Amino acid sequence: LAQGWTERLASALAELHPAEVAGLLEGMPPEPRRATWELVPEDQRGEVLAYVHDEARATLIDEMQPEELVEAAEQMDDEDLAEVLDVLPADLTETVLTALEEDHRRRIEAVLSYPEGTAGRLMSTDVISVRADVTLAVVLRWLRLHLRLPPHTDALMVVGDDGRYLGKLDMGTVVTGDPDSLVADVMEPAAELARAEATESELAALFERRDLISVAVLDAEDRLLGRITIDDVVDVIREEADRRLLKSAGLEEEEDLFAPVIPSARRRGVWLGINLVTVFLAAWVIGRFEDALEKIVALAVLMPVVASMGGIAGSQTLTLTIRGLALNQIADANLRWLLLKELGVGALNGLVWAALVALVAWLWFQSTGLAMVIAVAMMLNLLAAAFSGIAVPIILHRLGIDPALSGAVILTTVTDVVGFLSFLGLASLFLL
Amino acid sequence: LAQGWTERLASALAELHPAEVAGLLEGMPPEPRRATWELVPEDQRGEVLAYVHDEARATLIDEMQPEELVEAAEQMDDEDLAEVLDVLPADLTETVLTALEEDHRRRIEAVLSYPEGTAGRLMSTDVISVRADVTLAVVLRWLRLHLRLPPHTDALMVVGDDGRYLGKLDMGTVVTGDPDSLVADVMEPAAELARAEATESELAALFERRDLISVAVLDAEDRLLGRITIDDVVDVIREEADRRLLKSAGLEEEEDLFAPVIPSARRRGVWLGINLVTVFLAAWVIGRFEDALEKIVALAVLMPVVASMGGIAGSQTLTLTIRGLALNQIADANLRWLLLKELGVGALNGLVWAALVALVAWLWFQSTGLAMVIAVAMMLNLLAAAFSGIAVPIILHRLGIDPALSGAVILTTVTDVVGFLSFLGLASLFLL
Repeated sequence: LAQGWTERLASALAELHPAEVAGLLEGMPPEPRRATWELVPEDQRGEVLAYVHDEARATLIDEMQPEELVEAAEQMDDEDLAEVLDVLPADLTETVLTALEEDHRRRIEAVLSYPEGTAGRLMSTDVISVRADVTLAVVLRWLRLHLRLPPHTDALMVVGDDGRYLGKLDMGTVVTGDPDSLVADVMEPAAELARAEATESELAALFERRDLISVAVLDAEDRLLGRITIDDVVDVIREEADRRLLKSAGLEEEEDLFAPVIPSARRRGVWLGINLVTVFLAAWVIGRFEDALEKIVALAVLMPVVASMGGIAGSQTLTLTIRGLALNQIADANLRWLLLKELGVGALNGLVWAALVALVAWLWFQSTGLAMVIAVAMMLNLLAAAFSGIAVPIILHRLGIDPALSGAVILTTVTDVVGFLSFLGLASLFLL
Repeated sequence: LAQGWTERLASALAELHPAEVAGLLEGMPPEPRRATWELVPEDQRGEVLAYVHDEARATLIDEMQPEELVEAAEQMDDEDLAEVLDVLPADLTETVLTALEEDHRRRIEAVLSYPEGTAGRLMSTDVISVRADVTLAVVLRWLRLHLRLPPHTDALMVVGDDGRYLGKLDMGTVVTGDPDSLVADVMEPAAELARAEATESELAALFERRDLISVAVLDAEDRLLGRITIDDVVDVIREEADRRLLKSAGLEEEEDLFAPVIPSARRRGVWLGINLVTVFLAAWVIGRFEDALEKIVALAVLMPVVASMGGIAGSQTLTLTIRGLALNQIADANLRWLLLKELGVGALNGLVWAALVALVAWLWFQSTGLAMVIAVAMMLNLLAAAFSGIAVPIILHRLGIDPALSGAVILTTVTDVVGFLSFLGLASLFLL
């Protein structure tokens, strides 16, 4: 880059919000990403790093000296820093932790003691708590001593003498309530709360269901540990959706669009390998009917139609079932109804499209037998697709396997095998 | 349902949060859904309706008398009611609007005047605004006159004499600031804002990027119209993700898992019909090689392997490209780099898997020629998959078509056609 251009880029970067700088860096191939990262002011790097996704972040950290990393660490929130440290090599983590102030280090170590993906890891320890036996006037006076409240303080946490969480005091109540009333009388005692071990998905569901801004995080003894705010949960919701989408194509979460060729090829190869096994299974089924294929070449021409229509219909049912499972809408009580409904949809669409396919096959190859065989095979495959669109994800779910990852592969294997088997099998029986 | 059971269910429903009742109703087939809806107390139905998704909501509204609907309407937020009214038949909308209080009706009509999916439609008009030329002490005294603040009031909106928006006054500042300071001196003048015409996706991006809780909505003359809060945006984010997932299987957004058979079959049939056209295109390509297929039956057995591997590799690239487009990470500047990278990934995986497929083909059919043909065809198809995994979504995007909907169909058509064409074509050239 030319000198003048570099300066202009540097001053443009200084104007941007750290989240925007992060987005910009993620949208760059390795070389310009490295050059741009050098231009990000050192006192903003911590905040920018907090917004960059895992894989792209690793490429940025690789460029940094340990002392730069320490400086960035000092600018980060506890929960963001914990996330960064979690993926660093152990000796670098040690260097950074040792360089932090005693107090900061203790807080980080506390956050790091919870497993990734739990409330304990996501929470901020920067929380304002008040006692239940004081008046609102006292709370207001005391708040005024704070120069600034933590971001997104929609409520104060009320704790007892022993540090146990008692409830939540809405900021609106602090402001509009009678100054002489006691906190105990105006707080929400039964406010929502989260345990430190709660998973990210549980938190996301809680925030969504109850339209929350923040929630107290407690340990097993009801002691207040910290607070989780909606902005962290929004990230969780977005990442979950992202992960679901990427998984359905056999990609890893947080895959960096601009990762180099070799690691990308290796990661995606796994999925291609799994698919290779399933497609050879389908090829083996076809191979059982070499005799029929040799005699009636139209079978080879039409067989992908039967398999493909089953795959499409099955993946529609599969997608709805996976979503229903994620939303907890599927239980034993409604499973039979759902299965009958999907079989009904499969049968109805089977009839319509089988008739059309039979017509095209008849016009093309002038064979009534072939037309009838393909129609029956399509009906069978659409029913098999509806059945496995429900059965496959539910069985995977009960086995504790995420159906978003492997559901589609198993389903299309079923529809390919059933499609080829029914079409070529019926043809062997009735047309040879 | 037995009498005792009905009573127990009714009292259980009364205990639940409206969002939980909504989730429960969505997870029910038509019959029990209707019976349960009858048990929801009338004074909670409005709130429950606000949480139910479009299609399921329509089934509930069908069960309601106009007067019940009016009662429910009175309990709903402006933005939720506007959403419900938008899908009602015109005469019912009229009935409900006429029955509302003058003031309420005007607010709803204002919200309804903005197109669906814009900030104007999503905003709440329930917003507290203060003048810039008063002191914080005055603001505090004035707030105390309000018995309760609107939910999620993290900041007050500051407006000028003419109703123009000037900035945002953080509630934290109201509480901790010096009571004698003027609002004008302690407010954030350059706070984020949204125009009434902003789309839901723009809002979601703004809230995520800036970690906002609420944002002012302005008209073209900078007048304050209302306020959008994070809880509505969380719904938008979740719905967008949901839509993206459903679309990729050719399903409509908000598809009700428990919709009856006939409408479900009709909606899904559209997608099956589109797929039928593309799969017949592939069949037509195969049909061009009847001669080769008749002579070498192994071609029919192995051809799905070539097509399927291309489809899988292409959909990985497609998924990453669609995500990159959604995140605004793809521009002319990095397109060449990205294309070269994906071609590199395709070539590398092509080499590895073509070698393995060739080995299996050789072991199975004992033909060196066939093994070499399938290896070259697979290489070609994986390169075509990488190229179209980038080109297809980018072209669709530039044409203003959402690549999440039609990208996968077009892509698999390309990989099917290229797969069959290269494999059968090379076989015709070298093996006959």
